[in-house]
Parts: sequence; structure tokens; C-alpha cells
Amino acid sequence: MIPENETIDFIEKGHKEFLHHLSIDCVLFGYHEHQLKVLLLKWKESDKWSLAGGFIKLEENLSEAATRILKERTGLDEIFLQQFQTFGEPKRSHRSKADIDHLETITKGSVPADHWLLKRTVSIGYYAVTEYSKVNPHPDPLSDKCEWWEIDSVPKLIFDHNFILAEALKALRMQIYHQPIGYNLLPEKFTLPEIHDLYETILGKELDRRNFAKKLISLGLIKKLNERRSIGAHRSPFLYKFDKRKYDKALKDGIILAF
Amino acid sequence: MIPENETIDFIEKGHKEFLHHLSIDCVLFGYHEHQLKVLLLKWKESDKWSLAGGFIKLEENLSEAATRILKERTGLDEIFLQQFQTFGEPKRSHRSKADIDHLETITKGSVPADHWLLKRTVSIGYYAVTEYSKVNPHPDPLSDKCEWWEIDSVPKLIFDHNFILAEALKALRMQIYHQPIGYNLLPEKFTLPEIHDLYETILGKELDRRNFAKKLISLGLIKKLNERRSIGAHRSPFLYKFDKRKYDKALKDGIILAF
Repeated sequence: MIPENETIDFIEKGHKEFLHHLSIDCVLFGYHEHQLKVLLLKWKESDKWSLAGGFIKLEENLSEAATRILKERTGLDEIFLQQFQTFGEPKRSHRSKADIDHLETITKGSVPADHWLLKRTVSIGYYAVTEYSKVNPHPDPLSDKCEWWEIDSVPKLIFDHNFILAEALKALRMQIYHQPIGYNLLPEKFTLPEIHDLYETILGKELDRRNFAKKLISLGLIKKLNERRSIGAHRSPFLYKFDKRKYDKALKDGIILAF
Repeated sequence: MIPENETIDFIEKGHKEFLHHLSIDCVLFGYHEHQLKVLLLKWKESDKWSLAGGFIKLEENLSEAATRILKERTGLDEIFLQQFQTFGEPKRSHRSKADIDHLETITKGSVPADHWLLKRTVSIGYYAVTEYSKVNPHPDPLSDKCEWWEIDSVPKLIFDHNFILAEALKALRMQIYHQPIGYNLLPEKFTLPEIHDLYETILGKELDRRNFAKKLISLGLIKKLNERRSIGAHRSPFLYKFDKRKYDKALKDGIILAF
């Protein structure tokens, strides 16, 4: 929980520290065994939920700002953040009387209509995927809860955040055909069903098992180990691991995958 | 050529019409028989070249702003613009003494250091591809030339525009695997070599002829006509056309292409 005076400071003095008209929204996806979740925050004194977001300091890079915002929420600082789209419909940030009331409730004072948090805001969207069991979520100055929600049970979010989430998922699903994924999401040694499940869960569709494995192996992204995992009578699938050098090269240069 | 008073008006009064800290840069690619070009502008009173760019009106959508900017430069208004990345390194828009001098030369007056055109600017990048023989380029208020340059002979551009161009080309090359292209770039009826050449030119690499055609046909994007084009003795390749319904559906829903 952020102390009250810090929240009030942010509302009253943030205009000197951050660029106006601009914000960042981070869609943090969390993967864990067959499930895809997303990190959401609940606004203080309200039952509204939102994505993790924040502002850009006067002399800060966009990607630094996104990394800082996500670190504040999750404690993680080695997350591969991907910028995917900038959202700027004028209406997306038209603030209502309720938004002004909300700020006034928090600050216990009056908030002018030209307050920096009420200006037209263009928001730059980033997404990342993490293993959600590794994350310990923290609320931000305007929220009192920060929790994982299953992708399919996300409630109505503030502003255009449901749209931003849907676009992030589309971008992630396209990106997965051009950049490898899984290095921080799977154990160091994994079975083919485990990596197959990761891709199916993210893509939200079935993938032919045989073609899938053949493709990843032929690109050199994963290699078979001379080791098996025993998971029951007569079942001991081979283990695989990522070829980190080829994985990093593929991250940098891009790949073309079609299962 | 834009009249001088319009240029001065824009420099002196633009801060009341446009959002501060934000701009749009458009990378307009032009395709014509084996060649990929890009539209560049030359700054007035200078030998510096730049991408086509502009600002966002106070209550304008980002995509409307990009469409307006490109229409002002090209006369075209039915261009499929794709937002691809937002550029915001603080250094990208640090203006030098030369930039201030440049504005002062144009306005024949003094320009304060906190002038709206000298603020930190985050730029939203869009790209589009057009048939360049259809375009009649126009300079903007700050430029005196607007011309097509071959992709491989682009000079050093202002700010980070060479980087923006390179990123646009990367994004276009990735997009081409997920959205069809060619409807406005090829004649209504075309041969397989013509569409193959379009894809090879954009991707900047060779594609297997047989697989390429097979893939587009199996996705239903193009269909063979019962018509041939005569291009010489013993050479009369079949003509093809896009299936517009499937093409539009693929544009909307996305496809997965791998040649």
C-alpha cells in the first residue's frame, strides 16, 4: 500500500516531473501451466480496474519508463518488454465528472478542470510475458490492489484498456511467429508437451504436435538432451533445452515460423 | 511551393493548433516494377532531407492526423496506413543551435529556446506502400522539395529518420507474412512473375517461385483466370487476380504465410 501523502504528492506535483499528454500502459501477461493471465490494478476508492500504467519522466526513454513502471508493479527488472501500439483517440482520455470526483476524494481538495491528469493523453502500449508464480504484485499510487486475472475473465476496465489488452494479445500472437518465446517461461529442461502447451495457450488454438516440434528443432531453437523425465509407468519423455545462442540470434534477427 | 506567410504562421501559431511533445512521421514506400522507393522532403534553406511528417491537431485521431499529413504530401487519401512504432529517445529531438538558426532564417525573427518546435518530441511512426507512378508529391511548410528516393540510396536524414525508415522496413517485412499486399500495387490482372517480383522486392530476398504461388492460391488470395497475356513468341503466361472478398477478410483477420 502506497502511503497517502505520496499519492497526493503525485497528483499535485507530478506535472513538474512527467511529460504532459503522454502515458504508458503495460500489458503484463503471466503464463503458468495451461493458463494465461494478465496483471490488473484496482483504483483506490472505486471498484474500477485498469492495466499497469504510468508516466514518462522529462528526460526518460520510453522503454526505460515502461521498465520502471513494470518494476514498480512487479519487482521484476529483466523483462523483455515489447512496444506494440500507441493509442490516441481523443475520446479515450476525456475525463468525466466521476474522474474529477475520484481525484478530489483522494486529495480531499478541489481539482481544476485543466489538471495535468485530466488532459488528453496519448498512451504508448507495451507488453511482456512472465511466469506469474515469480511475481509479487504491488499497487501504484492511485490503486489499492494489484492482481492476476485470467484472460477470459477480465472485467470491464477503465478508458480503452479492454481494447489495449485485446490489441496486445493480437500483437503477442503475431510476434510469436517471428521471435522465440519461452526462455523465462519454462524450466531449463522441458518436455515437448510443455513447450507445445505454452505455444497453444498463448496462441489460443491447437497446433499439430509433430509439425510444431519439427519446426523448432529444424530452426535450431531447441535441442534434444540425452535425458528423460520419468512421469509414470512407461512414460518418460525426452527432455529438451533452448540453444541460447540461436535463441538470442533469433530474438535479434527475427524468424519465420509457420506450424 | 507553400507561400512564405503560411510557413511563418505555422511556426509562430502552430502551438495553439497542435498537441505539444508529439509528432507523426510517415514512411511512404513506393513500388514500381522491381523498385522500392521512399518519399523524402528537403528542408527549406538547408540541404537536409527528412521523412514526411507533421503534427496532431488538438482533437484529432492519430490515424486521421497521419492520413491528413500523407494526403497533403501526395494527394492520395485512400492509403492503407499502418502504425508501427513510437520513437521517443529524449536525444532524438534535442535541437541544436543550427535548428534554431534554421527557424530564425525562415521567420526572419528571433525564436525563443522554449519554442514549441524545439521541445522534446515523441514521434508516432506510420508506413504505407503505394504505386509511386500514381503520386504527385508536394513539399510541406518547412520544405522546398518532395521526391522519391531509391531505398538503397537514401542520404543521411535529420534526427533519427534513418532509424525510423529502417524500422518501418522491418515492420513492413514482418507484416507481409500476416496481411496480404498488392491490391493497389499491381494491375487488376497480373501474372505470377509480377506478384512474385512485388514480394521479392519488398522482402529484399529471393522466394521460391513454386511455393510462393502455391501458398497464395491455397489461401484463396489469388485466383487463376481463363486468360493469358501474350508477351512474345511462345510466351503467354496465365493471368491471375485477387479474390477481393478473401483479400479483405485476410486484411482484417490476419493470415500466416511462410514461403
